[in-house]
Parts: sequence; C-alpha cells; structure tokens
Amino acid sequence: MKLIVVTSNVHKAGEVAAFFSGIAEVEHVSLEIPEYRFPKVREIAEEKARYAYRTLQRPLIVDDTGFFIDALNGFPGPNAAYVFETIGNRGILKLMAGVTDRRAHFETVIAYASAEGVKSFPGIIEGTVVSPRGRDGFGYDPIFLYEGRTLAEIPLNEKSMISHRARALDAFRTWIIRTEEPAGD
Amino acid sequence: MKLIVVTSNVHKAGEVAAFFSGIAEVEHVSLEIPEYRFPKVREIAEEKARYAYRTLQRPLIVDDTGFFIDALNGFPGPNAAYVFETIGNRGILKLMAGVTDRRAHFETVIAYASAEGVKSFPGIIEGTVVSPRGRDGFGYDPIFLYEGRTLAEIPLNEKSMISHRARALDAFRTWIIRTEEPAGD
Repeated sequence: MKLIVVTSNVHKAGEVAAFFSGIAEVEHVSLEIPEYRFPKVREIAEEKARYAYRTLQRPLIVDDTGFFIDALNGFPGPNAAYVFETIGNRGILKLMAGVTDRRAHFETVIAYASAEGVKSFPGIIEGTVVSPRGRDGFGYDPIFLYEGRTLAEIPLNEKSMISHRARALDAFRTWIIRTEEPAGD
Repeated sequence: MKLIVVTSNVHKAGEVAAFFSGIAEVEHVSLEIPEYRFPKVREIAEEKARYAYRTLQRPLIVDDTGFFIDALNGFPGPNAAYVFETIGNRGILKLMAGVTDRRAHFETVIAYASAEGVKSFPGIIEGTVVSPRGRDGFGYDPIFLYEGRTLAEIPLNEKSMISHRARALDAFRTWIIRTEEPAGD
C-alpha cells in the first residue's frame, strides 16, 4: 500500500518511513494545515486529517502531540508547542517549584484519513517532571523522566521504539495491516 | 442597519448592543465556531468571522482577545483563555516572580464580515502585571494594572469605556458609521 505522511517536519516523515519499511510505501507531503484550538489532541489530529484529505484525496496520516502535567490541570496540553516557544522548560520548572505531584504524560494521536473517513490512534507515555538532564531529544524531553532516564538521555533509536509517537504508530500499523489483509480465512 | 454579534457569551452581546444603541440594531446569535491555533489574535478573529459568515450569510462581528506579557515572550498570548483555565493568575504570578519587566497588554480584535469580505479592528490596552487586587472584572483583570488601578478595581461602566474591547468596538463603530453614510456631499 501507499501512505502519505502530511507534516512540515522532515525528521518526523523519515521516522514514519522507517517505521513502515516493508509494509507500506511512505510518501512525504508538506502541506500547511490550519490547526484548531480544540481541547483534545485527538480532535485536533482528526480535523487536520480531514482537512488534508479534502485537499489531497488520498489515504494519509497526520499527527498531533500534547504534553500534560497533572498538577497544572493538564497544562500545557495541546498548546505544548506554543508554551515551549514562549516560557520554555524554564517556565515549566518555575511553575512546578515546590509542587510534590510531578506526574505528567505525552500523548500523540495519529489520525488516518481515507475514503472511509477518519480513524485515530492514541499513544501515551507516562513519567514525571524533573530538572533538565541529557542532550538528545528536543522540546520537553530533558525534563521528562521515564523509567529512570529523561527522554533526552535515551538514544534516539531506543526512544523511537518506546515514545508516545511510536506507540501511536504501532497501534495504527497493527490496525492497517489487519485491514489491508485480503478477506477470507 | 442591522448587525449580528456572534458569541456564546450573553454578557458580551449585551455590551455590544449598548455600545451601538441608536446606531445599529444588534442581534445576538450563539454559534459554535471552531477556533484556529493561529499565532495572531487578528488571524483568529478574521477566520472566525469568515466561518460565521459562510454559515449565516449576513453582516456580523466576532471578537477574539489575547493577553501578552513582554517578559514571557508574549505568553499567554492568544491562548489566554486556556492558560487561565489551567494555571490561572497564580501560575502567571509564579512565572513573574523575580521578574523586573512587568509590562503586558490586552488585545481584542473585532472582525466584521459582510458580502464585501472581512475587515478587522484591533483595540489594545497597556499596563503591568501586579499582585491581585479588586473584585470586579474576570480572568486576568485583578493582576493587570492600568493607570494606578487594576481592571478589577475599575467599575464595569468605566471599564467598558476604556478597555481593549471598547477601543476595538470604537474603531469599528467609527468606520461603520462612515461607511453606512449615504454617498454625496
């Protein structure tokens, strides 16, 4: 099968291509998609997929990611990118100063659009907020601790097996392989 | 003339009706408008107006408001509502602890949509971030100081003459009165 990944991020597109190697031929399309201010990552991803499908008229996936801190009522949530660009990890740590409950999670939703409509696949990774450590990764990775290491301390090839995005892609892959199988026993 | 105010907020609609008393007959329409994650309040308001006009096909206004803190790179900006609901004024003050530059501003953009297209009118009020004071107002009003008083210390009838929204409405009113005038000398 052929699958289009719609993203303006070349690295993301490469990651997806590697993930589907031998299963699907992945093509990267860079398309400006207006993003909605929905409260849920899932709604944002699904609406982006709908928009992209109206434009391209071919099966495609898009994703959207949020970062949610329990003690901050889910902040920065779906606005993770905006918050990172303005107050950054320094701001997050200032907000978390003196806060005992450090729990947080990332969520990526992969939304797949085809002639049959839109279907979405969430992937979540749970951890805690800590002082920055590590040199790999980007964004909130250095302050997100998962099983003893921050995401910025986990090598990229290992991270791309366990991350929220990997989990969402995995759920989608499992589903699409089953769906693409010829009918019958 | 007849003017439709599209908002889910009854109080806002009442404020606008009072503002246009004797100039335009204001009708309130409550319509769910999907909001885009644009970086500019103006783009968000204009897109909302376009969407509402496609649905209603009659001249209308919508608004959008942001709150921008200089020392935080404009945070919370167009995400003011989301940030208020999650970390609130307590979070903002925590981020501003030890910060000398306290400058901030509110911006409201009124977007007017008609058969001729969309036109927008910004209104800005500049002040500083302080510890909460006052019982009037809502949102960030108690921590926003304008000429010696916070917006929550200024009575509503006075606030509705000087606020960012009042300034945007004023700019729009000036323009629409001129536009609606019969041609000729």
